Amino acid sequence: MTALAFVGGTGPLGRGLGLRLAMAGHSVVLGSRSAERAEGVAAELDAPVGGTDNAAACAGAEVAFVTVPFEGQESILPTLGRELEGKIVVSTVVPMAFDAGGPHPLAVSEGSAAEQCQALLPGSRVVSGFQWLPAPTLLKAEVVVEMDVPLLGDDEAAVEQVAALARDVKALHGFMAGPLRLSSTVEGLTPLLISVNRRYKAHTGVRFAGLARD
Amino acid sequence: MTALAFVGGTGPLGRGLGLRLAMAGHSVVLGSRSAERAEGVAAELDAPVGGTDNAAACAGAEVAFVTVPFEGQESILPTLGRELEGKIVVSTVVPMAFDAGGPHPLAVSEGSAAEQCQALLPGSRVVSGFQWLPAPTLLKAEVVVEMDVPLLGDDEAAVEQVAALARDVKALHGFMAGPLRLSSTVEGLTPLLISVNRRYKAHTGVRFAGLARD
Repeated sequence: MTALAFVGGTGPLGRGLGLRLAMAGHSVVLGSRSAERAEGVAAELDAPVGGTDNAAACAGAEVAFVTVPFEGQESILPTLGRELEGKIVVSTVVPMAFDAGGPHPLAVSEGSAAEQCQALLPGSRVVSGFQWLPAPTLLKAEVVVEMDVPLLGDDEAAVEQVAALARDVKALHGFMAGPLRLSSTVEGLTPLLISVNRRYKAHTGVRFAGLARD
Repeated sequence: MTALAFVGGTGPLGRGLGLRLAMAGHSVVLGSRSAERAEGVAAELDAPVGGTDNAAACAGAEVAFVTVPFEGQESILPTLGRELEGKIVVSTVVPMAFDAGGPHPLAVSEGSAAEQCQALLPGSRVVSGFQWLPAPTLLKAEVVVEMDVPLLGDDEAAVEQVAALARDVKALHGFMAGPLRLSSTVEGLTPLLISVNRRYKAHTGVRFAGLARD
């Protein structure tokens, strides 16, 4: 059992992935700017999940997932540097916007949201992944979500620990895919998949065909 | 039958994809800076394929594939603006470099190689695709290469024509995936797949699970 926190965990991905990891036996606490809101959202999930403010959630965690909107991380993450010092931080953040032409990636001066996360939290071990999991489906506890989860990071041991967490969730295949500087591509797959899904009224996921599974 | 040209077509992707499209019944001409070199390379392929200089290849084509190295397109493409005016130009180019940390995408000020191609050829109808086809395998005419080929472009009719060309090659599933500004992600999949393949000694391709096939 690993103690997990979700920064900005009251959104769809925090709730959905938090639920699945709690179902897998991990200790999960959703963080929010408002402890009351986090407690209320956590109490509605179909598994024992805690809720508190972001700093308290991170202070008690071994691994923290960042599930804030991209626009929010530059203000939120620096306030958590002490709580996250030396810990594994999983960036799930997608720099993306929508306009009349549909979804599109936003340029990030650091290269990607995950690299920006690492720059904002220099004492943490950042791993990038989980960007295009279907959050609403994760919330349906009875549905098996079969998906490849490529993970990127410069700390191999940290990536392996996150891959093991992913694999604790049935049918999620977490695996080390490369260094953090390749993160912009996996982040960009979210707007690409939304574009494809809108056009074909489909629910596609990306699968790395030809890779051995567990 | 469509008349197809490959700019810089003597490299692995030009030869491999040119071979497959010639096998599918299209008229294929490989272009090169040296007409002699293009003729020699084309003559070695297991299908009737022509070879000449880039300008002559483009002048006679209805659709031109750009298969030059990224570093070369800024000097080569502007010299072909007249030959490619009004025509469909397929960008297969990947802005990528290798160092001790492995393959990684290069930043492109226009956003992607395909958007740079469109900026260099403002009178052409640019479609992005085919970036991570396994070129050496395409050259083995007897091997079926089953792969999804997401295509990006702002001209729907041009994209549909390129998708039809892709589908003329057995087991290549070409489909419209979105506007050209999403190209950086499909270009970035090449270094990501190389990274995964090196690590696992695999030959992975990306598959859009959940999408209906022809």
